[in-house]
Amino acid sequence: MMADFCPVPNPDVHRDFLQKVVDLLFKNVVFTTRRDKVLLWKTPEELQGEFDFTLPQAGDSQDKLLQIMKNTVKFSVKTGHPYFINQLFSGLDPYGLAGQWLTDALNASVYTYEVAPVFTLMEQHVIKEVCKMVGPQWSDGIFCPGGSFGNGTAMNLARFHKFPQAKLKGCNILPRMVVLASEECHYSTYKFAAFLGMGEDNVWPLKTDDVGQIVPEKVEEAIQAVLLEGAVPLMVVATLGTTVRGAFDPIHAIATICKKYEIWLHVDAAWGGGLLFSQKHRAKLNGIEAANSIVINPHKLLAVPQQCSMLLVTHPDILHRCHSRGAEYLFQKDKYYDASYDLGDRYLQCGRKCDVFKFWIMWRAKGSCGFAKHIDTLMDLAEYFEQQVNARPDFVLVSKRQYVNVCFWYLPRYLRGKLNISDYNAQLQKVAPQIKAVMVKHGSVMLNYQPLKTLPNFFRFVSQNSALTKKDADFILDHIAEIGDALFP
Amino acid sequence: MMADFCPVPNPDVHRDFLQKVVDLLFKNVVFTTRRDKVLLWKTPEELQGEFDFTLPQAGDSQDKLLQIMKNTVKFSVKTGHPYFINQLFSGLDPYGLAGQWLTDALNASVYTYEVAPVFTLMEQHVIKEVCKMVGPQWSDGIFCPGGSFGNGTAMNLARFHKFPQAKLKGCNILPRMVVLASEECHYSTYKFAAFLGMGEDNVWPLKTDDVGQIVPEKVEEAIQAVLLEGAVPLMVVATLGTTVRGAFDPIHAIATICKKYEIWLHVDAAWGGGLLFSQKHRAKLNGIEAANSIVINPHKLLAVPQQCSMLLVTHPDILHRCHSRGAEYLFQKDKYYDASYDLGDRYLQCGRKCDVFKFWIMWRAKGSCGFAKHIDTLMDLAEYFEQQVNARPDFVLVSKRQYVNVCFWYLPRYLRGKLNISDYNAQLQKVAPQIKAVMVKHGSVMLNYQPLKTLPNFFRFVSQNSALTKKDADFILDHIAEIGDALFP
Repeated sequence: MMADFCPVPNPDVHRDFLQKVVDLLFKNVVFTTRRDKVLLWKTPEELQGEFDFTLPQAGDSQDKLLQIMKNTVKFSVKTGHPYFINQLFSGLDPYGLAGQWLTDALNASVYTYEVAPVFTLMEQHVIKEVCKMVGPQWSDGIFCPGGSFGNGTAMNLARFHKFPQAKLKGCNILPRMVVLASEECHYSTYKFAAFLGMGEDNVWPLKTDDVGQIVPEKVEEAIQAVLLEGAVPLMVVATLGTTVRGAFDPIHAIATICKKYEIWLHVDAAWGGGLLFSQKHRAKLNGIEAANSIVINPHKLLAVPQQCSMLLVTHPDILHRCHSRGAEYLFQKDKYYDASYDLGDRYLQCGRKCDVFKFWIMWRAKGSCGFAKHIDTLMDLAEYFEQQVNARPDFVLVSKRQYVNVCFWYLPRYLRGKLNISDYNAQLQKVAPQIKAVMVKHGSVMLNYQPLKTLPNFFRFVSQNSALTKKDADFILDHIAEIGDALFP
Repeated sequence: MMADFCPVPNPDVHRDFLQKVVDLLFKNVVFTTRRDKVLLWKTPEELQGEFDFTLPQAGDSQDKLLQIMKNTVKFSVKTGHPYFINQLFSGLDPYGLAGQWLTDALNASVYTYEVAPVFTLMEQHVIKEVCKMVGPQWSDGIFCPGGSFGNGTAMNLARFHKFPQAKLKGCNILPRMVVLASEECHYSTYKFAAFLGMGEDNVWPLKTDDVGQIVPEKVEEAIQAVLLEGAVPLMVVATLGTTVRGAFDPIHAIATICKKYEIWLHVDAAWGGGLLFSQKHRAKLNGIEAANSIVINPHKLLAVPQQCSMLLVTHPDILHRCHSRGAEYLFQKDKYYDASYDLGDRYLQCGRKCDVFKFWIMWRAKGSCGFAKHIDTLMDLAEYFEQQVNARPDFVLVSKRQYVNVCFWYLPRYLRGKLNISDYNAQLQKVAPQIKAVMVKHGSVMLNYQPLKTLPNFFRFVSQNSALTKKDADFILDHIAEIGDALFP
């Protein structure tokens, strides 16, 4: 039967189809287990041959549609699989998924109260609750389409705070502004410096120490150097939980320097911010309350489905002052309710998908205690993983673990204890990519590797999936070693 | 039973819960009918009392979670309801919904091929297919989190094209740049001019005629004025389908002027671009192929679930040159596959939810012909609606219809034929808000109103739901008249 064109679902035609889709997802995605593969690897060239991407003139039958949805699942990575440990997201939370499905069915745009009443108040409530966990002077924020956009928005707020005329007049009448950020900061700082018209070269990297933290003295030195060049030191971007090593910049010391020079302090806690929920590990975020703005991504550590990212600010009303434009077709002044509940004009986006509900329903499902338990389990596992790396002759830790990230090298036999050979780093550089290639082709484990500064390619173990056990950690190390032994006998 | 904290779904615990959520959505959202209310109106203050937003320490039971999900649905607007005609999106497409549900279950981030193989190739395929419909020299683009962000990204590309040094050096070393846009353009042009460091005041509004189109002569006049001020006329933003009136700017004439002065032409076809699929109405987009960049939102006219927004460009490789940063932890050069398939570095975002699948599966379900039929049905209905407005003494058209938008006033008896009274506009200004308030409180119809330039508040009929019939159009007009008669006897 050809699918009809009408966008109102008809129970007679569509219920059965939608239920079959749900059954397919239950069977092949949602309840994936260790016995399943993480992925069925195909090169781009192979996949183009095996998957029918074409778009037809006439519609497909429902049976055909189910078949291609099945194929989509077949060739997609199961990011909810316990051995998907490739990124700063993983784990498919069933309550988060339920939240997404409900959000999709309501298909709201969260710009005015009238169109999204529950989600509008819910966003405010969640923002206030998270703010409370940060500190007493915090109460305001917005949701963003990802942490990069949140970091960029914070940069715009910092500029507006210092030069309110930037909003109307632009930057060409303003002095050069410099952003100071860790040399291990997320690359969005550079991307958005370019996008905002500030220029990538005006992001100055601050040296990090051997575990990846900013050295506070370097911040003050850099500020002096900026001033000496006649530029404006606009802001410092500190990171709580760097992408690769999971390092935590010393916020207290940095905040003191920022205060002294009246510089905006933005904290990119996209990855580390979820620790707010853990009494045991909250101390890693100490000082966060001294920031001017913070990005936290619940879709990372807290395993909320993508995307769920928050930007929090301290300055009263700055989001509205910096972003508002007062479009009359949307934010009418003569509404039948208190239009101050229409939050859309505080945003840069117009239409905006609801990202709060999945987080809120997960919070209801687990409670704050459930999130805490989740985090503490992840931290314990990372500690165990680090211990195993240290205990084994075939693995070497890159630097001391600060967080859930464990960065390590697998050492082929011929490199063990051979730090003195001249091309040691060049040799080591080639190891991780080859092991990863084998794992992916097996479909057994997805585990990221990368170089960092002068360090050759190393693996980063990082999971947001608290179903992982010590056995899993052992399996992953054994698996790498087994592949390594075969590749580099 | 308290929900467990583990983010791997367990069939024994979660299947039944997820199925109950699906049943709830089937019953109360997905298959909504004309007999249901569009919304159950509560003021923000009332809703705060009736809905429990609190976030607990310990988790809720699954029964409790189902109850609060039911409540969420109860107090939310049914944007799929045929009488939700409040925005430039509406209609819940069952295939689009199925696509979203699958996307959610896979929870991918579309930045590298290895993490999202199917979606990566699918994005490229869909972009190429849409480009083909635009014109032969088109082949490249990206997906954006909404049309505002797409318009802003186009502004950044225009700047980079003119001043490649902007990326590294920033704007403070560059001359003042001016963006020319219709006075009826979307407000995102202003918001992103501020965000990009170009300044809202450097967006110059171009006069529109009495149906809302840019007057081409005004473009050239404005360019001359910009040059006279010693500023750089950077780009023209033309709109195909303005937000309020659905006007189509004369692209051919504007493109000729842009070519003459070597100015970037961006076409905001977020709302109108879907017409690419209709042979009958495609001509409204004539000239679009002469642009340098285009934004099209399939989540608008084509009723793809939110959000699905595309930015298309002509300049080869400009997305990569303008946006790339080459983060080594994500875009490794030594991968086990051709890393040119990793498209993430062409984006400003890092993590990015997949927005293509719902569009692709709808396209498969309906075929291009199904989208065409959808559009033609909407256009026919709008024509009928306009005819009825013209035929009735109690309604007046604001300006001749160009598109799906029909802008009209309801005239209370005491204002009919009284154009000469001195406070006519002030009186008329108050009418639409009062009628809307009654409709919303009834939960019968959601229909937007707004002022425009010097025109007092008027209604905008606009539907993306091709299930609407002439009977529905009659009902809506009758319903407004009935409420109007009662309010203004």
